Amino acid sequence: MSRRYYGPDFPKETYIAHAYPESTVDLGEVVLNYAVTGSESSPALLLVPGLAESWWGYEAAMKLLEADLQIYAVDVRGQGRSSRTPGRYTLDNWGNDLVRFIERVIKRPTLVAGQSLGGLMAAWLSAYAPPGLVRAVYLEDATLFTSELVPAYGTGMRQFAPGYLFNLFMTYLGDQWRVGDWKGMQSNAPSMLPAWMQGRIPAGDEPPQSLKEFDPEHARAMFTGTAMAGCSHKLMLQSAKTSMLFTHHARGIDPETGIVRGATTDSQVSYARQLVEKAGQRFDYLSLPEKGHILHQEDTPLYASILKDWALHVA
Amino acid sequence: MSRRYYGPDFPKETYIAHAYPESTVDLGEVVLNYAVTGSESSPALLLVPGLAESWWGYEAAMKLLEADLQIYAVDVRGQGRSSRTPGRYTLDNWGNDLVRFIERVIKRPTLVAGQSLGGLMAAWLSAYAPPGLVRAVYLEDATLFTSELVPAYGTGMRQFAPGYLFNLFMTYLGDQWRVGDWKGMQSNAPSMLPAWMQGRIPAGDEPPQSLKEFDPEHARAMFTGTAMAGCSHKLMLQSAKTSMLFTHHARGIDPETGIVRGATTDSQVSYARQLVEKAGQRFDYLSLPEKGHILHQEDTPLYASILKDWALHVA
Repeated sequence: MSRRYYGPDFPKETYIAHAYPESTVDLGEVVLNYAVTGSESSPALLLVPGLAESWWGYEAAMKLLEADLQIYAVDVRGQGRSSRTPGRYTLDNWGNDLVRFIERVIKRPTLVAGQSLGGLMAAWLSAYAPPGLVRAVYLEDATLFTSELVPAYGTGMRQFAPGYLFNLFMTYLGDQWRVGDWKGMQSNAPSMLPAWMQGRIPAGDEPPQSLKEFDPEHARAMFTGTAMAGCSHKLMLQSAKTSMLFTHHARGIDPETGIVRGATTDSQVSYARQLVEKAGQRFDYLSLPEKGHILHQEDTPLYASILKDWALHVA
Repeated sequence: MSRRYYGPDFPKETYIAHAYPESTVDLGEVVLNYAVTGSESSPALLLVPGLAESWWGYEAAMKLLEADLQIYAVDVRGQGRSSRTPGRYTLDNWGNDLVRFIERVIKRPTLVAGQSLGGLMAAWLSAYAPPGLVRAVYLEDATLFTSELVPAYGTGMRQFAPGYLFNLFMTYLGDQWRVGDWKGMQSNAPSMLPAWMQGRIPAGDEPPQSLKEFDPEHARAMFTGTAMAGCSHKLMLQSAKTSMLFTHHARGIDPETGIVRGATTDSQVSYARQLVEKAGQRFDYLSLPEKGHILHQEDTPLYASILKDWALHVA
């Protein structure tokens, strides 16, 4: 059996070149990797990828947005070329990394758009960033409530399709790729996933690029609930201090297993809206049921047009 | 039965005047209360009280130190006049509050001295603050390892004398004083504490001032382990980035119950020293077995002389 190992200790196996130059900043606990494009005279925008996506997942979107916005796209801790921090992957820590990043690198009030887990970080910043740092946030199909082990509304991680993938990743890849059993993951996946999820198992002899750059401990932190420990989504949404845009992509509940497909359910988003509006903040909602989870990759022109409209509206 | 309620919603019942004027700063999630004294031309020192102590526990020490240092003493979140944040009392959050405080209020490299839980926050800052913010840290009888539910070395919270008090507080006082059964706590304490701890139950018809200013949810967060979730003391000490002074006061292990008395054991501190020195940082140790847990109150002149020597040595 051939094991596969990736991450900062195996740079040759892990990283490839990208269209934009990369920079790093030392934030104390972690060194964060990022790319920047656009003019300082445009509004600042921070792009935060979801779990297992690196900053360059936004490359195509950056091309469409750089004329109008100054864009910073980051690798969060544990992804891409940013530091690995075993035992320290929590929403509070991810959020505070971004606070330090905005303060030290962007240095002005910022729009924040995050996808999936990155969307949760955007919501976190709305709630918990220091005053004046964040202007507004856009949650692209964020996994509100579904990514908690015990959510305040609806079902959570153990009845959530990605949870099944996370269990697979944590078992066969291991923290920091210590297990690295890519083939074992592929061959055991059928027994660990519901029938309708079989198509989601990454094929090929080696992991896709974004997964190579991922610390599989993220999957464990999500599946076991430590990632959200101390950061209830309900409390977070109740503390919103900026307006929020939510785009909601394909979703539903598998009637046979009760498993939530997509990022979060209609009723969970509706509860989120109540909480944010009760906090005195505007909540804009756009339903895109025919679009997949990562809109900025699947339909970049639509994503860019939504984002531009939002950014101009907020400005 | 008469219930007693305290905290920011009951200011008349809770707060009293102090020798130094108080100020507040909005850090985003929390408003922090603090006092400052001394000259801007002296080195900056941040004082961080332990659990159930407010900034003014340092008043006597401030008088002895203000000629040589510019001193900032804070109420951490959930204590004194600072914000209550139900569900959000973690070492990572306390630590990041202090990062924001140093950046926004002190605004220059700072010496940090904390007692007990405040000493853990000092260690956290050494490990995880942004570069250049913290010059050196002094851990006054910090509860290293003992305040974790599952420590990497030695025994933890459930075999730790304060854990028994925390269980009492969380049961009879309740999060944000919702239970407020002060008399019930006193009358049930004998059955919940080992014989040799009976003297530690606060007497009197009402709580001592420092306890009135305390959110009893701190006790629950400590006893149940959520306070340290995501922040292993071992990982933290391994990440030390400044020198550390540790003063170790009266301690021991009760042979009959196995319960740790004092802040932490000799062998736990010795393990901490190994970790810090392996991280390339100096670890100074001073054993004061005849002194109680809060040296800065019990023997203020000795505390002030230790602190001054340390501050000058570091400078």
